[in-house]
Amino acid sequence: MKHIHSAKNPQVKQWKKLLTKKERDNTGTFLVEGFHLVEEALMENRIEELIISENKDIPPAWNYGDIPVTVVTDDIILQLAETEAPQGIFAICSQIEELTKTAAFKKYLLIDAVQDPGNLGTMIRTADAAGMDAVIVGKGSVDVYNSKVLRSAQGSHFHLPIVRGDLEKWVEKLKEAQIPVYGTSLEGGKAYTSYEPSDTFALIMGNEGSGVSKTLLSTTTANLFIPLYGKSESLNVGIATGILLYYLRK
Amino acid sequence: MKHIHSAKNPQVKQWKKLLTKKERDNTGTFLVEGFHLVEEALMENRIEELIISENKDIPPAWNYGDIPVTVVTDDIILQLAETEAPQGIFAICSQIEELTKTAAFKKYLLIDAVQDPGNLGTMIRTADAAGMDAVIVGKGSVDVYNSKVLRSAQGSHFHLPIVRGDLEKWVEKLKEAQIPVYGTSLEGGKAYTSYEPSDTFALIMGNEGSGVSKTLLSTTTANLFIPLYGKSESLNVGIATGILLYYLRK
Repeated sequence: MKHIHSAKNPQVKQWKKLLTKKERDNTGTFLVEGFHLVEEALMENRIEELIISENKDIPPAWNYGDIPVTVVTDDIILQLAETEAPQGIFAICSQIEELTKTAAFKKYLLIDAVQDPGNLGTMIRTADAAGMDAVIVGKGSVDVYNSKVLRSAQGSHFHLPIVRGDLEKWVEKLKEAQIPVYGTSLEGGKAYTSYEPSDTFALIMGNEGSGVSKTLLSTTTANLFIPLYGKSESLNVGIATGILLYYLRK
Repeated sequence: MKHIHSAKNPQVKQWKKLLTKKERDNTGTFLVEGFHLVEEALMENRIEELIISENKDIPPAWNYGDIPVTVVTDDIILQLAETEAPQGIFAICSQIEELTKTAAFKKYLLIDAVQDPGNLGTMIRTADAAGMDAVIVGKGSVDVYNSKVLRSAQGSHFHLPIVRGDLEKWVEKLKEAQIPVYGTSLEGGKAYTSYEPSDTFALIMGNEGSGVSKTLLSTTTANLFIPLYGKSESLNVGIATGILLYYLRK
């Protein structure tokens, strides 16, 4: 195992750059923190490199094969950490750039400009729980590899493909594949219970303030809304995602 | 209107004490921050006192009648604020200590030891949207009048009664009133879709880590769970609340 003792080591500087979206995209990688997330990444063969504190041990049950491991000081751990009480372990993971094997995919969640990292992470976790085949994140959303998004998703990034994409093109592509695409909107459309659950569909959820863009809504198979029975003006976008995905799936 | 210029004024010190649960409970009041929440409180007649920055105005459309208003400096606003960019307005509101008129109540959300303020607030907002008649919060939960809970609930505290209560006693009381009480549990019980939607029910949601207490689960009418179709180990408790409330209500 390689050891690094100085935070000035160029390798440490390179890792720190992964805290920015720009460097994550330049390298096609991202940084994952903590034993739970690193273990999830390991099980799905997404790790390129492990980084561990000299005061911590890799759990004996982990089969990390020939993944390179670098042992570092706690000072270096603190420089990379974005949590308040870092656990002393990180992994450099590979991004998924494009969806492959979509011929077998039947259920999609499309995300249009969701900006809160906790919301985006919870939506990814919920899409996983509801058995979606993929999540496609459009422009204007917070970065899917933001550390808060990763923490809120609790490992679901490694359970199903999460990719960035042009949602307008995806809506066309899904419709061509005979997959109904549902937009969500407070105005227009029908209550979600007007539609039958199905084993194939795509759902588009939108920005916390402005919802799904009008351009996208004009291209969907149908648009739907969740009735509000009390006095609240809206539902949280993550909650709405859960209600709709669990209703629409058969 | 009364004016206060010094943060050392005893009235300011008293208001600041409302940032603690102890003082909120001693006085039966709580502090609400920002134009949106204060307006919601105003519309539901829950305000005892208004506090506004000398650099802000009460919106002309607000009909605040004989509610006392105190004008303060921005220094005092900053001492009371728990947000990063305070809007310069607060209200002292009255707590609801006990449920009244429950004879007409048909749908309840019971919350057992939910600890994250964002989760509790979102659950209250969701209960409002789903048309619940009341939310009862048991021991071990974060305080319902915590400022983060208030912000996450986006005014729903004023739309339906939110009370603290002994959940074991409530389960007995609801069952006596012929209201079916559903516990939630990953072990035991049936999938939620085994139960028919109804116009009367009570749902118990539990702690983020340990779920609903075993004691409570042993006293319910039935226990249910939400199937996980992907690889995620659980759903966020707020998401689960949304899926279940919208399914169970008719």
